[in-house]
Amino acid sequence: MSDAPIGIFDSGFGGLTVARAVLDQLPGEPILYLGDSARQPYGPRPIAEVREYALEMLDQLVREGVKMLVIACNSASSAMLRDARERYAGIPVVEVIFPAARRAVAATRNGKVGLIATHATVTSRAYDDAFEIAPHIELTSVACPRFVEFVERGVTMSPELLDVARAYLAPIIEAGCDTLILGCTHYPLLTGVISYVVGDGVTLVSSADETAKDVYRLLHDRGMARAEAAAPPVHRFRATGDPDVFSAIGRRFLGPVIGYVESPSDTSVFRLTP
Amino acid sequence: MSDAPIGIFDSGFGGLTVARAVLDQLPGEPILYLGDSARQPYGPRPIAEVREYALEMLDQLVREGVKMLVIACNSASSAMLRDARERYAGIPVVEVIFPAARRAVAATRNGKVGLIATHATVTSRAYDDAFEIAPHIELTSVACPRFVEFVERGVTMSPELLDVARAYLAPIIEAGCDTLILGCTHYPLLTGVISYVVGDGVTLVSSADETAKDVYRLLHDRGMARAEAAAPPVHRFRATGDPDVFSAIGRRFLGPVIGYVESPSDTSVFRLTP
Repeated sequence: MSDAPIGIFDSGFGGLTVARAVLDQLPGEPILYLGDSARQPYGPRPIAEVREYALEMLDQLVREGVKMLVIACNSASSAMLRDARERYAGIPVVEVIFPAARRAVAATRNGKVGLIATHATVTSRAYDDAFEIAPHIELTSVACPRFVEFVERGVTMSPELLDVARAYLAPIIEAGCDTLILGCTHYPLLTGVISYVVGDGVTLVSSADETAKDVYRLLHDRGMARAEAAAPPVHRFRATGDPDVFSAIGRRFLGPVIGYVESPSDTSVFRLTP
Repeated sequence: MSDAPIGIFDSGFGGLTVARAVLDQLPGEPILYLGDSARQPYGPRPIAEVREYALEMLDQLVREGVKMLVIACNSASSAMLRDARERYAGIPVVEVIFPAARRAVAATRNGKVGLIATHATVTSRAYDDAFEIAPHIELTSVACPRFVEFVERGVTMSPELLDVARAYLAPIIEAGCDTLILGCTHYPLLTGVISYVVGDGVTLVSSADETAKDVYRLLHDRGMARAEAAAPPVHRFRATGDPDVFSAIGRRFLGPVIGYVESPSDTSVFRLTP
């Protein structure tokens, strides 16, 4: 058992969907989230640079004593998973690509799997590599660079977004994919529009949810969970860029908190006779 | 377009997973959540009583001018969906059973679908009815009454929970189900342990996520969404029982909010040179 936090790293905000899935499944575990918001997005940077930045971030998490590292960023995962495993021997490292790829292989009925992701992730061919040993899988990859901007603006149903989504997703529909990997940690917040466009017959695989399942499994199997009776965990969020910007955009990802709860006596309109 | 809130009703807390999925997918829409926490759980009550209570709750939401009703409770859905549609003609009513059943039919590869739910939902045979026109689907239903208690206590990895989960899920594994419906709105918060026990080859269908997709679709197709440029929405939570208890348990469902965000200058341990 260990009271140390789970370290979650992303280039910016997207990894917060992973953080939230971990918080959902492991509400007793403290997390330390580190977003490199000063240097995001990593997508357009050369792989060597992504690797350098990402290892610098993970070094910081390790110095803070995290018990596990979660690389909650597809671009970083594809650039430096192997380096991280070598560098931090003894600290388990979880990333976002393999959990989603595994789930897609299990879910597809016709072997036609779609991938939507950033330019960087698509061109890294990290998912193609993950599917290397499953030759019956036919992967259709589409870069959807503009989705991130809509998520961060909180726009999920504008005519403009629907046009963009229809254009991005046309090759997925044309290929007859029955399973679609949301290969960018921002995309779970566009499930509504994506499902609307591809139809509800298509199984959506969220790399955030699948990664949280891996974190759960690893924590259990290695006996690293926090004691059940411990005090409520304290979560920490750290950003290399402007903390206020991080806080504002981050709210879109972690959602609102329940503030004041009304009761029946609050208003005469509500007359309850329970 | 309409600025009116989306009304979400549940017997207590579970519907908050539906509320959160709606908030994720439609961050611009105000919601009015009504939990009948004074009279929960509905599960053990006779259907006629569930119907009476649930219609009373929906009446209140309608009086508050909601533009759509979401019955975020499996027990209530199975008891009074038809009544609600008749009673509130003109206001779209979304419930949690059909969206999940539809998704399961699309997802299964071998036709063997599992259902875990409360006693009330299993004995109502509401999911059996939903699958009536899909005779190739072989449904294995298991009531998991104790899961709710673990969720509300925030326990997701204790040896006791794992024992309970293994016992509950044994018939699902034995039947060879490749798809499992989480037929109670509490269960998405146990995805980690459920997936751990049944294995990651099984596709989990969350009625919360599927219901949110239906809300998205309906709102779009009927042109009922709020204007994009409108001010941030105000969400309201109302409970028939103790507001403080609701607020405390509710936090487990909606998750923590990002409070203070650290920046590199906060501590000398973190020296960043971006």
